[in-house]
Formats: sequence, structure tokens, C-alpha cells
Amino acid sequence: MNQDYIKADPWSIIEEGFNKERIKSSESLFSIGNGAMGQRANFEEHYSGATFQGSYIAGVYYPDKTRVGWWKNGYPEYFAKVLNAPNWIGIDVLVDGEQLDLNSCKSVNAFRRELNMKEGWYQRSFKAQMENGIELAVKVTRFLSLDLDELGAIQYEITPQNQNAKICFMPYLDSGITNEDSNWDDKFWNTTKVQIQGNQAFIESHTMKTNFATCTFMQADAKYNGNEVERKQETTNELEASIEFEQNVSKGETFTLIKLGGYTVSQNHEASQLVNAAKTVLKQASAMGFETLLEKQKVAWGKIWEMSDISIEGDVKAQQGIRFNIFQLNQTYLGKDSRLNIGPKGFTGEKYGGSTYWDTEAYCLPFYMATKNQEVAWSLLEYRYNHLDKAIENAEKLGFSNGAALYPMVTMNGEECHNEWEITFEEIHRNGAISFAIFNYHRFTGDYSYIPKMGLEVLIGIARFWHQRVNFSEDKQQYVMLGVTGPNEYENNINNNWYTNYLAKWCIDYTLEQLEVVEKNYPDDYGRIKAKTKITPEETADWAKVANNMYFPFSEKHEVFLQQDGFLDKEMIKVQDLDKSERPINQKWSWDRILRSPYIKQADVLQGFYFFEDHFSQGALEKHFDFYEPFTVHESSLSPCVHSIQAAKLGRMEQAYTFYLRTSRLDLDDYNKEVEEGLHITSMAGTWMSIVEGFGGMRVVDGQLSFTPQIPKQWGSYSFKVNFRNQIVTVTVSEKNTSFEITGDGGLEIKVNGNSVTLVPGKNIEA
Amino acid sequence: MNQDYIKADPWSIIEEGFNKERIKSSESLFSIGNGAMGQRANFEEHYSGATFQGSYIAGVYYPDKTRVGWWKNGYPEYFAKVLNAPNWIGIDVLVDGEQLDLNSCKSVNAFRRELNMKEGWYQRSFKAQMENGIELAVKVTRFLSLDLDELGAIQYEITPQNQNAKICFMPYLDSGITNEDSNWDDKFWNTTKVQIQGNQAFIESHTMKTNFATCTFMQADAKYNGNEVERKQETTNELEASIEFEQNVSKGETFTLIKLGGYTVSQNHEASQLVNAAKTVLKQASAMGFETLLEKQKVAWGKIWEMSDISIEGDVKAQQGIRFNIFQLNQTYLGKDSRLNIGPKGFTGEKYGGSTYWDTEAYCLPFYMATKNQEVAWSLLEYRYNHLDKAIENAEKLGFSNGAALYPMVTMNGEECHNEWEITFEEIHRNGAISFAIFNYHRFTGDYSYIPKMGLEVLIGIARFWHQRVNFSEDKQQYVMLGVTGPNEYENNINNNWYTNYLAKWCIDYTLEQLEVVEKNYPDDYGRIKAKTKITPEETADWAKVANNMYFPFSEKHEVFLQQDGFLDKEMIKVQDLDKSERPINQKWSWDRILRSPYIKQADVLQGFYFFEDHFSQGALEKHFDFYEPFTVHESSLSPCVHSIQAAKLGRMEQAYTFYLRTSRLDLDDYNKEVEEGLHITSMAGTWMSIVEGFGGMRVVDGQLSFTPQIPKQWGSYSFKVNFRNQIVTVTVSEKNTSFEITGDGGLEIKVNGNSVTLVPGKNIEA
Repeated sequence: MNQDYIKADPWSIIEEGFNKERIKSSESLFSIGNGAMGQRANFEEHYSGATFQGSYIAGVYYPDKTRVGWWKNGYPEYFAKVLNAPNWIGIDVLVDGEQLDLNSCKSVNAFRRELNMKEGWYQRSFKAQMENGIELAVKVTRFLSLDLDELGAIQYEITPQNQNAKICFMPYLDSGITNEDSNWDDKFWNTTKVQIQGNQAFIESHTMKTNFATCTFMQADAKYNGNEVERKQETTNELEASIEFEQNVSKGETFTLIKLGGYTVSQNHEASQLVNAAKTVLKQASAMGFETLLEKQKVAWGKIWEMSDISIEGDVKAQQGIRFNIFQLNQTYLGKDSRLNIGPKGFTGEKYGGSTYWDTEAYCLPFYMATKNQEVAWSLLEYRYNHLDKAIENAEKLGFSNGAALYPMVTMNGEECHNEWEITFEEIHRNGAISFAIFNYHRFTGDYSYIPKMGLEVLIGIARFWHQRVNFSEDKQQYVMLGVTGPNEYENNINNNWYTNYLAKWCIDYTLEQLEVVEKNYPDDYGRIKAKTKITPEETADWAKVANNMYFPFSEKHEVFLQQDGFLDKEMIKVQDLDKSERPINQKWSWDRILRSPYIKQADVLQGFYFFEDHFSQGALEKHFDFYEPFTVHESSLSPCVHSIQAAKLGRMEQAYTFYLRTSRLDLDDYNKEVEEGLHITSMAGTWMSIVEGFGGMRVVDGQLSFTPQIPKQWGSYSFKVNFRNQIVTVTVSEKNTSFEITGDGGLEIKVNGNSVTLVPGKNIEA
Repeated sequence: MNQDYIKADPWSIIEEGFNKERIKSSESLFSIGNGAMGQRANFEEHYSGATFQGSYIAGVYYPDKTRVGWWKNGYPEYFAKVLNAPNWIGIDVLVDGEQLDLNSCKSVNAFRRELNMKEGWYQRSFKAQMENGIELAVKVTRFLSLDLDELGAIQYEITPQNQNAKICFMPYLDSGITNEDSNWDDKFWNTTKVQIQGNQAFIESHTMKTNFATCTFMQADAKYNGNEVERKQETTNELEASIEFEQNVSKGETFTLIKLGGYTVSQNHEASQLVNAAKTVLKQASAMGFETLLEKQKVAWGKIWEMSDISIEGDVKAQQGIRFNIFQLNQTYLGKDSRLNIGPKGFTGEKYGGSTYWDTEAYCLPFYMATKNQEVAWSLLEYRYNHLDKAIENAEKLGFSNGAALYPMVTMNGEECHNEWEITFEEIHRNGAISFAIFNYHRFTGDYSYIPKMGLEVLIGIARFWHQRVNFSEDKQQYVMLGVTGPNEYENNINNNWYTNYLAKWCIDYTLEQLEVVEKNYPDDYGRIKAKTKITPEETADWAKVANNMYFPFSEKHEVFLQQDGFLDKEMIKVQDLDKSERPINQKWSWDRILRSPYIKQADVLQGFYFFEDHFSQGALEKHFDFYEPFTVHESSLSPCVHSIQAAKLGRMEQAYTFYLRTSRLDLDDYNKEVEEGLHITSMAGTWMSIVEGFGGMRVVDGQLSFTPQIPKQWGSYSFKVNFRNQIVTVTVSEKNTSFEITGDGGLEIKVNGNSVTLVPGKNIEA
């Protein structure tokens, strides 16, 4: 049974009723973020029950010493951890001297949470009867500002219901926090100064080792009956600062605390100026006030939705699911800062050190390319360019040379953050996804300038890696690639993973082509790159030898490429013939049994058919899909989207829709029973792809936007927006037809089901 | 540069000169043990420098919670650790109020350690000048009694050299000890009672979780000028007990402390009777006194050497090396107790949790069979029989059923103690070694009774495992075995490891044969086993299908069996063509690079040729040896012995001798720079095999002892003893001939170079 307590609603995530067992899950689901910081939906007031506290600042991490059972040469010594940051949201509440704590109240009624995705705010309200008999109504509204991205705001309203009460707000800052996933219980933060100035407080602290300096700040203002309530007293100790407001509140009247808070960090300011920077933010924010800040928040989110919304008619749960995904992606990453990336849990949990997987290039980039201006996608590519030296260093540690680059499996600052040998050292296809993203960016945006400016150097480093990673098999008289793990992580240390071999060949071919283009069209850049990389015609000729004579495992009998050497030796029992009690195999089976089974965790050969679909015929796709799909267990959140897109392409909409459903409400319905730990952010982009590329059939072919729209029979209609080269194209698909609208100055010629259609601003075109 | 500070001597290990850098290495090398307990050669008196404290009781362990980077299904939750036990050897020494501590003395001269292997004692002597100017001569003699195996004895003699001195001995017991390799810094011991009675002290403690109760005990007696010195005072706290003896000692006179101590444990006594048991031991021991105990120790070791010595003329270092190996094996395991086994570090360090690897069956059993009475080998087999239920449970955890048994990779009590998936779940050939040992025991001893009594059940459990572990490949139309790690651990998760496949087939065939023999000759046992295992003709017919149609990778071109599928795809650069700076690859290369290389850590296909040499022609052995040897890096201490035996068999004595040298002084010369952590006990049996089976060419063929003696040209002669079915055969090989002597009642017909020779007691036969 999946979780089903979230109310269906097109624009909001809503929980009703107080259930202590759901606290941690809801803390994840109601998380808020603004790209620069984010936090789990922890209560402001004290809560003595089970909770998972988390507040995170983008790009602030700690290199925790690696802990493994058995050390293997090559493991990174440290492992960058997403870091729980000082708490600025805390507000202790005393009511006639008793601390408000929902875990110990006599009763909690009318408990409700709403995360309003359209407007970007989170609200919690409840009625509680305390041990002392006082009944309260509480409403708390919180958001992290998109405009002032160092700032969050909280409005905490409390109304005694059955009697007058002396209510005391004690808003505080607390830097005495820890990470749950610390390896050695190291202390991650060092707090250097705690101060209160009037109704403002500041805690200066820095991370150990990485020395990110941070000022955690707040300003608190209390109001009663329209009047400011003076603060009664203040307290500081070496880790905390607290300001106290006390008020005799009449039954039925509301006592309100406005708390502004957040972080200024040394990545964006001089370390010595963090308190001043915080004061500047607070000054701007208090000049506007809570209501104005909230209005601006609604406007800012409105702009995001204008470019990225997908609406679905006739299926409110699907509608809620896709908007939740789009909302979370935008909460996590807005593309303003090329030092940042899209962590797999975003700002919703600690799990998985590091922030960047190949998920970014393979799954997230298409979403950001199509729903943001192209600078955002550029930032994502630039992130890898900035890490190129570290990728070369990483490859050197593993024995490669001559500028070969191996990007880490997981990273924060360019250094490897992963420590399973079969992944860290062998799941090297990630390198190819980085080259593919460069190709994909150019294909979608039409902007070639990234390649001569930055991309070609990345391509060269990666091509060099592949050239060194293969070896010539005397036996096969071809180049082979031994000891890899493909996208299907249920196979480890295999030989000649078709996807990896194919990607490697493609990377070399593509790099050779771009070398020619840049040499011809960007001679200055070419000269610079040639001098820097010392690339020679002899070297590229050697690469070509590899690309031209790469071995690809193939079955004549089945007429399919084999996922790897020896795949056909397995006991080929289809997933549908497995007893249900055996699933999911990653929970029911020991690792060795998984490895020797034919079961595929996520699209592997089919991932290649997704990336390079124009290299293969529809017939070949069908053969491979029909061969591999029956063995695919989709135990990765990144898998069903690829199958969904391909099923749609094969005209199998029922199957495509089934795959789509597996991702769109993965977290809302907690399919994997782990939403407590945080959300699956990167896979959310796959859900977007399922609709836009799958159902909508969107592609860019020869610089032209193209669609082959279909619709699941469960839906009345659906509509999505795509920012194509600075024009917003709105596509609305219903069973009977598809209509297009376009913004911008000029027209746009697109293809719909292979036919040319010209879009003109202000005109709704049906096709 | 290897270590070379150990003086060459035929019977003793000797260190001369005080070097703080060597303390930990010498603590390993001078370790003593008596099969029931053992200890590193830690100083009795306080030492403030770098040291690795260790005292171990056989069979007393702690299940430490497993710690890994990433959990895989199937890992054992706990991991049995060899446990550092309370210290009974400690003697604090005060000289005019200054504590004797070799780390802070002004000078230390004439420092000498001797481990007398012939007589089984360890002695340390030195002269030291203390900070207060007093010069001392110290001599300490220590041994662990073979006769009273709960007892150790220390004689500590101290003589002021330059002035009179007030000397205080404070012998103590200390249970405030820890393990260096604790995973979570758990407390392993709980101490419940500390008491002193007269000159005796007792600490009662038990291990956490496993609840092994232990009494650590001592008795201390001080003597000066032939008179007993009364104890001055005594101290206890919750973890320690100490008794103080003070004496004004004249220059040149000797103050002597005799300390008797050791452990009584709940495996051998009622937990409530441990102190009484300790008193009984102390009573027996003090009745004899130190000198008599030492005399008995010499006699007991003399008996061991009588059956197991190997003497080498003309090469004192080789002589010292082989005796060190034989000595250590006997210190570790004497075969009195079938609950015990042969830990890879014996009693010399903590490394590697658990005590039992397949080393026992593959490498140690032949040594113990040939140098002890057959009860000892029986005990080793019985150990596995006693763990059969746990092996079945272990297999069930990994998804096997119907009584299939998978013995753990490493164990203490039958439960798995290892947690690398590629080893724990996949290095399953260990199971086959256990069946092979049953065969080998019968072959050597001629005693079939173990098989109906215990062995057949083990064989059935293992055959069932293999039958389930293979699968039928539709592609190959044969049975394949996917996802294994062979003896060569530089390949992980490979398919169709020839050694494992061959062993699996052999296990089934051998089990089918024994089923027939037992049915025919031991009908009662057969009935019992059939009822217990529910074995049916249908099941055994299924097994036979697998054994008769197993796939073995083979290269037509090279005419060799391939170590695994795809082996020939590797870049086949021979070890001799690798740059020296790349070696050892396990230190210089990242794990992925090792895995995709052709380099072999230890004999793999050749291990199969060793076990089953009579299945293959000399020509086939030569072909396989010449194919695999050039790729073998021997980075396991268990590898060179197999190559040495096979090189000898191929008449390549120079090469055989080179391989022999790599193991015989592995620890004495510290080839691997890790002797600090303890000795390589199990590989020491391989050294013995190199001489007896390699140079001596000893085999048992059709129940007959057979030899093909050769001699390395570096040696004048060598001689070894074999206990063959209760007759001791002494074989002396020189360049010109081989002579045989035999003890016992009757004659023995043996084969020498294929010719029959009859040995008669009391007669030296040359052949």
C-alpha cells in the first residue's frame, strides 16, 4: 500500500489531520527552496517527537572522511557531504509558561499543511489543546524569497480559543546542529560569534576544513492588536541567540510574530562583511514588510510557471504530480550560479553526498533548456568546464595520463564523492553523458559558441579518456572495454557494455567533428585549445582507430545488441514471471543473485537508443524494446521515463502511460517508502520528459522543433510550454487535435507529425 | 629493501640492538602461543613508545557491528572479531621511584630478544641507564605452557649495575584493554569482579554479546638472594589488580619476580568456577615451579619437532625460515579442540575478523595430516561438520534452499564474518575446498569413517549448493556459473571461472560416489542421512545432469582452459614486461585497473591443477603453467607454494626454489611491510608443502606413499618427517641420493620415483 494522505489538488500539496508517523515524510514533501537555500518543513516551535531537521545552503558542504569496510586503491579520502546548516526558523512558544509542543498536546485538531506551488509559499495551521487546558489556533506561513534569495520569511499567528493567555514568542538562531549521516561524528561547523542587536540576531560560523563562512541571521517583530510588542529580553550563549516577546493575549485575539531570516555566505560576500550583508538584506526586506514580500513571491513564481507549466485536464492527481515535479526542480536549481548544480535530494535531505550526478546532463538538462533561458543550460555546462582540471586529476589518480578526464560519479566541487569500486571506478559512462549534453545543448539552442569557448576542451579530455580506457583484444581483433558498470547498476564489472562502448565511440567521433568545425570557424579558439591541450594529428588518428573498430556485442539470433558480453548466458525469466514476493529485488535478493539475474535496474541499451534515436530505425527500436523491456525492473527512479518515451514512440500509449505513472507521483505517494529521507529531485525531470518528449513527441531535428503529439486516454487534454530559442511555444493536446501558440516577435516553422506548420504570434494554430 | 635485522640461526629467532622503529614488528615476530592462547611480544614493563598490545584467547571473539560505505543485501550484520584479551603479563618496575620505560631511558644497550623455537620459550635481555643514572641489567624469560595450556610463566630478573637501588615490582592484571580494529568503538569486555587473595589476583570479565566468561589470573612471587620477598601492598580498582614487592637491591645482586598467569574460560569450565579453576592451575604450576615448568616445555616442544621438523643443511636462513613456519603453525593450532581453527594471523594480531578461511582446508590440512596424529585432521574436518547448520542458514540468506550449504568466507562460529560482496557472496569456491579436504583426508589417512559419520552430510549440502548455483544457458546449451570470484581475487564477479566450475563438477561427482559407497558399506549411516537430508534419486539425477554438462571455457588456440570467460580479451602484457615501479600492483594501481589487467593474484587455474593433478597430463600441466605463470604476480602469500610445487614437478628446480624463497621468510624479512600487524600463519603451511610435496614430491597414490625427490642446488641436503598412518617416515634428500627411515612396528611399501621400496623400522634405506 502506497501512502495516500496527500489531498488531490491542481496547485497545492495539502495534508489534513495530525499524524505523528507522517511528520518526517511531510517534512520532505513540504520542503521549500529558492535555488540558493532550502529547508525541510520542520516545525518552527519545539517538537519532541521524531523529526529530521534540515536546512541547507547551496554549495556549502563538508568533506567527511571516507568510511568503508575494506579500502580499495583509488577511493577518495574525503566525501563531500550536503551540510545541515544553522537553524534560523526556530520559534519557541510558551503559553502560560507551558511550551507548545505538538507531541505533548492533549489534542491536535484541524491540522493542515498546504504547499502552494503556484505562489511559492507553505502554510501550516492547527488547533491544539495544551496540557494546561488552553486551546490555541495557530497559523504559520513561510516562504523562501525568490527575489531576495538570502532571505526567508515566517508569519506565526497564535490565537487563544478558550481563555486569555500569556503568550511568549522566543524566536532564535541555533548553530548547534549536526548531520545525521556523519561518518565519524566530526563536528562540521565552528561558531565564532553570536550577537543580538535590537530585534536582530547574527551567528557567524564557518564550516570546518572547507571554511565556508556563514552568517545566519534573523529579525523578529511581534504585533498585537495592530501594535508593535516590545521585546522583553534576549539571551545568547556560544551557539544560540534568542529574543523574547511576551504578551497577555485575550481569548479570540491574535498575537503575531514576523520572523525574517536566512544566510549570507562567503561565496557571495567578503567573509568580514557577512553581518553587514545580512543587515542590508533585512533592511530591504523590512522596508517591504511580510505582505509585500509575499506578493512579490507570487509574482516571481508566476513568471516561472509562465515558462514551465504543464496543465492536464481530467486527471487532478496527474496534474498535481507533474506540477510538484516542476515546482521542486525550480526550488532546487534556478541556474543563476554556475558553481551550483542539481542535487539528487535537492534541499530536502542529506542522503547521497555531493550534488551532481550524470542525472544532470542526461535528465535535467532537457527540462532546463526548454523551460528557462539558454543561460541556465549554459551554466550547467560551464559547471563541468570549471571542473575539467579536477576531472583530469581524478583520471590521473586512476592511472590515466595525457589530459584524459574522468568526471566523478558524484561531486560537489569537482572531486569524487563516491566510494563503491564498481561505481566510482567503473560506472564511467557518466563521462559520455557530459559530452552528450554539449551536443544536446547545441542541438536544442542552436548556440555553437559554448563549444569553441569551453566545450571542446571538455570533449578532448573525455575522448582521451575513452581512448585510453579501451584495449585492443588480440582475440577479437577489435577494441574492447573491460570492467565497467553501465547505467544498469544491477550488473557490475562487466565487459563490453554496449551502451558504454557506443557512447565512447560517439564521443570520439563527435569530438573529431568539433575539432574540424572549430579549426575552420574559430581559428583563434582552435589555436588556444591546441596550445593548451597539445593535441596532434597523430593523437586524433589514434582515437579514430578506436572509434572505427570498436566491438559491440550483438546476438544474431535475437537481432539485438547485447547489454554486455555473456548476457545470453543468464536464466532469462521475464519480470512478469517472477513471483510478486520477490520484488523489488533490491530489497528481496542478495546482491550476487541480482547480479547474475537478467534484471535491469534502469534503461541501459535503451538509454543509448534514447540518446541516439536517429541512429536506429523504428524497427530496431522495437526489437530492442521488446527484448529488454520484459527484463527491466525499473528500480531506479530514472528508468521509467526512458521507457515511457520509447513506448510512446512505438505508439504504445497504454504502456507509455503506465511508465509515466511510476514517476510522476513517486514521492507524493511514496512508492519506495523512503520519502522521509528527502525527495527524488533529479528523476522529476524525467517525468517532464515523459510528457513533453514522450506524449508530445517533441524533438529538435535539423534545428527545427518537431512534435508527434499523442494523449493518454485517461486525460481530456494537456498543455505544455517550451522556450525554443527565446520564443515560448504552448502546445495543447487533446484527443481530437493539437493546438499551438507562440510568443515573441516573429513566426516559427515547426513540424507536426512530419508536416510543416508555421506558427505566428497571437494566433492559435490547430494541427 | 626488506627487513634484515633478524639474526640467522637454525633454531632461534634473534634480534640484537634496541630500535624503537622495530618494536611493533618484533612484537609480531616474537609472539608466543600454545594453541589455546597467544600473545604478541609486548614488554612486561611499561613502554610509552609505539606498541601494538595483543593477547588472545582461542575461540573468544566479539561480533562487532558491520561498518561499510554502502550496504548490500546479504551482508552479515555482525562480524566476529579476534578479541584483545585482558593483560596478564604486565609488570611495572620502579627503580628508586623512577618507572622503568625503555622509551625514556638515557641509553639501552645489549638489547637482545631470542625466541627459542626448539624449546618453546622467549627471552629478552638488555642493559639500560635510567634518567636517575641507575644502570640495570634485565633478563626476562617467558613461555606459554603446552602442558598446562591455561598457563603462562614469566621470570623477570633485574640487577643494578652501578649502585644499590630500591626496586619495586608491581605485577598486575589489567582488563581495561581495547581492540585497535573496533568498528564503532564498542566496549568489548565487561569486567565484573577484581580481587586479590594473598599473592594471587583474579579478574572476572565476560565479552559483551557473546558472553564468554573469563578469569584472568596471576600469581606473583619475588625472590632476593634466595629468599622470598614479602609483598608490600596491593591495589585494586574496577579494572586492575596490582601487587607490590619492594626490595633494596645491592649493586650486582639480582631481584627476581616469577609471575604465573593466564586465563580460564567458560568454554572449558563452569562460568561460576573460573576462579577455582584458575587456583587449580596455579596450584599445579607452583608445585612445579618455574624451572620445572620450563623443562617440561622443552620436552613438549621436543615431541612436536620429533614429528614435524624439517632440517636443511647448507642454508641457515632457509633452515630458520622453515622452522619458524612450522613453529608458528604449532603455536597457533594443535588440534586438541574441534571448536578451534587456524586464524590467518594466529595469536599475533587482530587483522581479519574471524579465524577460518579456506586456507585451512587447502593449505593447512596437508601439514597437520602429515605432522600430527590423524585426530588433529579429523578435528579440522569436524569443525566444518559442526558448522553445517549455519552454512545451510547462510545459503538460505542468499536465496538458496533445500539444505544447500554455503560455508562462510571467514568465520569464527560458523557465521559469515566478511563484507565485500565480491568475496562474501561470490568467492564461493571455498565451499569446494571443504569437500576436497574430506577427499584428501581419506586419501592420506586411509580412514573412511569420517565420511559416513559426518562428511557425507557436508558433501550433500555442498553439492546441493553447486546444483542451485549454476544455471542452464540456452545459448551455450550447457550449465554455466555466473558472477563468481575465483581464488584470483584480482578478478571479481566473473563468469565461468574454470577453477570454480571444475571444483563444482568434481564436488557433485565425488558426492555421488560417496553416496553409493555409504549406501553399500554403511547402511545404518545411509539410512540416517537419507532421513535427515531427504535426498532422493530424482535429486541426485539432477545433480548428475549438471556435473555431466558443465561448461569449461577453453582456448583452442592456446590449448588451455581459460581462467574465465573473456580472459583473452585482456591486454596480455607479461609481468616481466611491467615496469618495476608499477609493482606491487595492489599498492600502485587503482582497483579497476587491476581488475581489467590479466594479472593473477594467486594460482587459480593452477590451483585446480594442484588439487586434481592426476586428472591432467604432465603436458597439460606444462602448457597451463607456461600460459598462466607469466601473468601471476603472487600478491597473495598463498600463491608461490602452488607454483613451487608445480615447477618442481616440471623439473624446473631453479624456478621452484625461487618461489619457495618468496614464502619461507615472508615475515622474518617482512617482504610485504606489514609484519607489525601480525604474522601470515596460514601461508606458512604452504612453505611446508613446497618442500615436502614440491622438492620431496610426496604424494599418496592408491593408498601408497610416494616420492620423487629433488633438491635445490643451494642446499647440501634436507630432511623431513611424515606421519603416514601412524608410522613416522624420515626422508633425507641430498644431491646424490635419498634415504628413508621409519618408526613403528611393521614395514611400509612406498614408491620412490615410481619404483617400489620397502621400508623397515631400524633400517636406513637409500633410494
